[in-house]
Amino acid sequence: MTADALRRRVVTANLELVRLGLAVLTFGNASAVDREAGVMAIKPSGVPYHELSEDSIPLVDLAEGTVVAGSRRPSSDTPTHLALYRAFPDVGGIVHTHSPYATAWAQARRGIPCLGTTHADHFRGAVPVTRQLTAAEIAGGYEEATGAAIVELGVDPTAMPAALVASHGPFAWGRNVDEAVENAVALEAVATSAYRALVLRSECAEIDGDLLAKHFDRKHGPGAYYGQPS
Amino acid sequence: MTADALRRRVVTANLELVRLGLAVLTFGNASAVDREAGVMAIKPSGVPYHELSEDSIPLVDLAEGTVVAGSRRPSSDTPTHLALYRAFPDVGGIVHTHSPYATAWAQARRGIPCLGTTHADHFRGAVPVTRQLTAAEIAGGYEEATGAAIVELGVDPTAMPAALVASHGPFAWGRNVDEAVENAVALEAVATSAYRALVLRSECAEIDGDLLAKHFDRKHGPGAYYGQPS
Amino acid sequence: MTADALRRRVVTANLELVRLGLAVLTFGNASAVDREAGVMAIKPSGVPYHELSEDSIPLVDLAEGTVVAGSRRPSSDTPTHLALYRAFPDVGGIVHTHSPYATAWAQARRGIPCLGTTHADHFRGAVPVTRQLTAAEIAGGYEEATGAAIVELGVDPTAMPAALVASHGPFAWGRNVDEAVENAVALEAVATSAYRALVLRSECAEIDGDLLAKHFDRKHGPGAYYGQPS
Amino acid sequence: MTADALRRRVVTANLELVRLGLAVLTFGNASAVDREAGVMAIKPSGVPYHELSEDSIPLVDLAEGTVVAGSRRPSSDTPTHLALYRAFPDVGGIVHTHSPYATAWAQARRGIPCLGTTHADHFRGAVPVTRQLTAAEIAGGYEEATGAAIVELGVDPTAMPAALVASHGPFAWGRNVDEAVENAVALEAVATSAYRALVLRSECAEIDGDLLAKHFDRKHGPGAYYGQPS
Repeated sequence: MTADALRRRVVTANLELVRLGLAVLTFGNASAVDREAGVMAIKPSGVPYHELSEDSIPLVDLAEGTVVAGSRRPSSDTPTHLALYRAFPDVGGIVHTHSPYATAWAQARRGIPCLGTTHADHFRGAVPVTRQLTAAEIAGGYEEATGAAIVELGVDPTAMPAALVASHGPFAWGRNVDEAVENAVALEAVATSAYRALVLRSECAEIDGDLLAKHFDRKHGPGAYYGQPS
Repeated sequence: MTADALRRRVVTANLELVRLGLAVLTFGNASAVDREAGVMAIKPSGVPYHELSEDSIPLVDLAEGTVVAGSRRPSSDTPTHLALYRAFPDVGGIVHTHSPYATAWAQARRGIPCLGTTHADHFRGAVPVTRQLTAAEIAGGYEEATGAAIVELGVDPTAMPAALVASHGPFAWGRNVDEAVENAVALEAVATSAYRALVLRSECAEIDGDLLAKHFDRKHGPGAYYGQPS
Repeated sequence: MTADALRRRVVTANLELVRLGLAVLTFGNASAVDREAGVMAIKPSGVPYHELSEDSIPLVDLAEGTVVAGSRRPSSDTPTHLALYRAFPDVGGIVHTHSPYATAWAQARRGIPCLGTTHADHFRGAVPVTRQLTAAEIAGGYEEATGAAIVELGVDPTAMPAALVASHGPFAWGRNVDEAVENAVALEAVATSAYRALVLRSECAEIDGDLLAKHFDRKHGPGAYYGQPS
Repeated sequence: MTADALRRRVVTANLELVRLGLAVLTFGNASAVDREAGVMAIKPSGVPYHELSEDSIPLVDLAEGTVVAGSRRPSSDTPTHLALYRAFPDVGGIVHTHSPYATAWAQARRGIPCLGTTHADHFRGAVPVTRQLTAAEIAGGYEEATGAAIVELGVDPTAMPAALVASHGPFAWGRNVDEAVENAVALEAVATSAYRALVLRSECAEIDGDLLAKHFDRKHGPGAYYGQPS
């Protein structure tokens, strides 16, 4: 993939966040990585979505964290994205949103329990929430510490393509940025239905492990039969 | 009805699910049956709604469950649809959605009580929820077992054109697929207002049997006077 | 106003119900009266909103309740509208909706307390809910009894241009049908914010009588100074 | 800035309130001030948003409160806006909305606690709610007393660019009216997520002071690194 193509995908993904109701104002950002070139393309900081163009997308060196192309300053969340790409070698795209229901769970510092098959189709178990950061972590390298706290959760990033940052909001990822957007949409849907299910039954139990595995595995992995043969 | 006409109706119905806010991503599917020809047309599995065309709609033999036309793999929920068509001989169309409020009820494993006349206009009593499936049912023929669990509820499919699958989401049906879509819309509306009514009054009582019967019967059956003479 | 103009206003008002999110499917209807001609124009029963045309709007004799023009059957709620026009001589338009939050209050059989100035701007106190109808009322002349139950609430229709029908949904009215639509919009807005205010504080008190009177009176009546001089 | 430019910005800002879902009917108004000219431009009272034009925007003398240009009567909330401009010399624009979640908090007479970083990005702590007005304040100069009650909260208008008026709704402000609109959007977003976080965890704690300061300060003030260099 050329750098232009990478940037084009990042523009598109950021616009999708708005179209899909996952971001308002400048809350939220999407990035994509080119592992061969060792660069990440990411939304510039504080730029309104409708002003994004390929040229405005900064390219950041994956190892060094330095801007290697583009005149705009990258998202302030850049160190969080870099930490995730470094820890999760199969991840090709990341989105951070303030989608309303997922953000409410993050603010309540509760992981999202798996209450239904929509959840199990995308996330193999409860979506976890990070611990709170220490004052030292906030004072020095805050955004990098945020990424480290996600990595510290110890999830398998293929089976659990999202996490909630406590008091903040969700991050979602995938093999590429389109899949990351799709997982962010699914995350908001399951955050919404789990919220309402708990209002209807405060002691609502998680779904059976068998049912959870069935749904996840029929869409993912070697025995998958959901979707079209690829 | 020709096979092309059947497929066209199924394309339209699936697009309606998106337009009406009942489905996101590829969650949800609509089917229609031609009893004379013994075939069902259904959404292909995992195909985005905007890519649907008549040609992409598989035709499935109603008795055998085999694909008789179309190059795409049918929805993974195909055995559920077939089980319902076989058990409910007057049903001509079925939709399965993950509409947000109905899904919350399904995840809470609560049937939707009849709290108002909008409900009674469409559903003659509480919309039931299935029992949980056993590990054996999940392991072998899961989707068919889902259909069997709905049939096991023992509803009159004309008086109760919808059911909730526990931990999953709603199915709705009708004499044809347009009516099935309409019932799915009505189901989401009543799932929404019942949720909020229970928040306002946790011990909210179901409506009187007289009022329930009055509303259902003024729209359905021999004494109906709602709508235009047909 | 000619009969054509009356019908045109009714078509427009019914389409507004859809555009403003107050009605889905065929739930909801608007009517307008011409007191001089002694006729009411009202939505035909069960006709989808997008199929409405001036010609399709029935004209109903206000005194007799008989259809005097138009080939379509009028709304099944026609006797309710007629009962309100007869009891409230200054009312020129009525809308009945199943707007989602107002319907939840109706289903919970709770009047909407006046918790804020948006409410006070339109409704001089709590929006009342009718008693439940008896089996005899449901069996004979159900829709007329619904209107009688609203009238029985004894409200001043100018100061309280809406009511909730228990287990059913809201009716709103005004000097003309545009004002009735506006009151239905305001009713849904106050039903929404009152619901959420009660979630935030279950013992939320009604606003002070002084503040209620101030807001209602600055928009209505002889000392009004809201809006432009007429 | 010419008077025409000031009025144009006010038209645009008022239309933004509708587009962004912060106002329905004629609930809500935006104003902008020209400190050099000593005038404020504000929405005319009770005029539907789609009828607004530059010519329809009244100009009000900041010191005297008198209309100095324009044939329409200014918003009935004009004295509230004037009180805020006089007390907050760095504020250039103000919006008052009835945005649904912020209004629910105002009706519940609860300030919005800072539960997450979206909140901290815009508001340096809990968004406060005014005390209730006395009968004497309501009877004489009600709208001016409303402004005085906001000023009485004693907030630093730069660090806290919004407040809730008890039993009424939110006001938000900024260095100019575009920033005021942005703060009103952010306020509704944080009102929404805080509401839901409290439903998920009724004893949800406010975020750490360190994290609050970090987020506010990375966007505002001398050490800011969010956004592009200006």
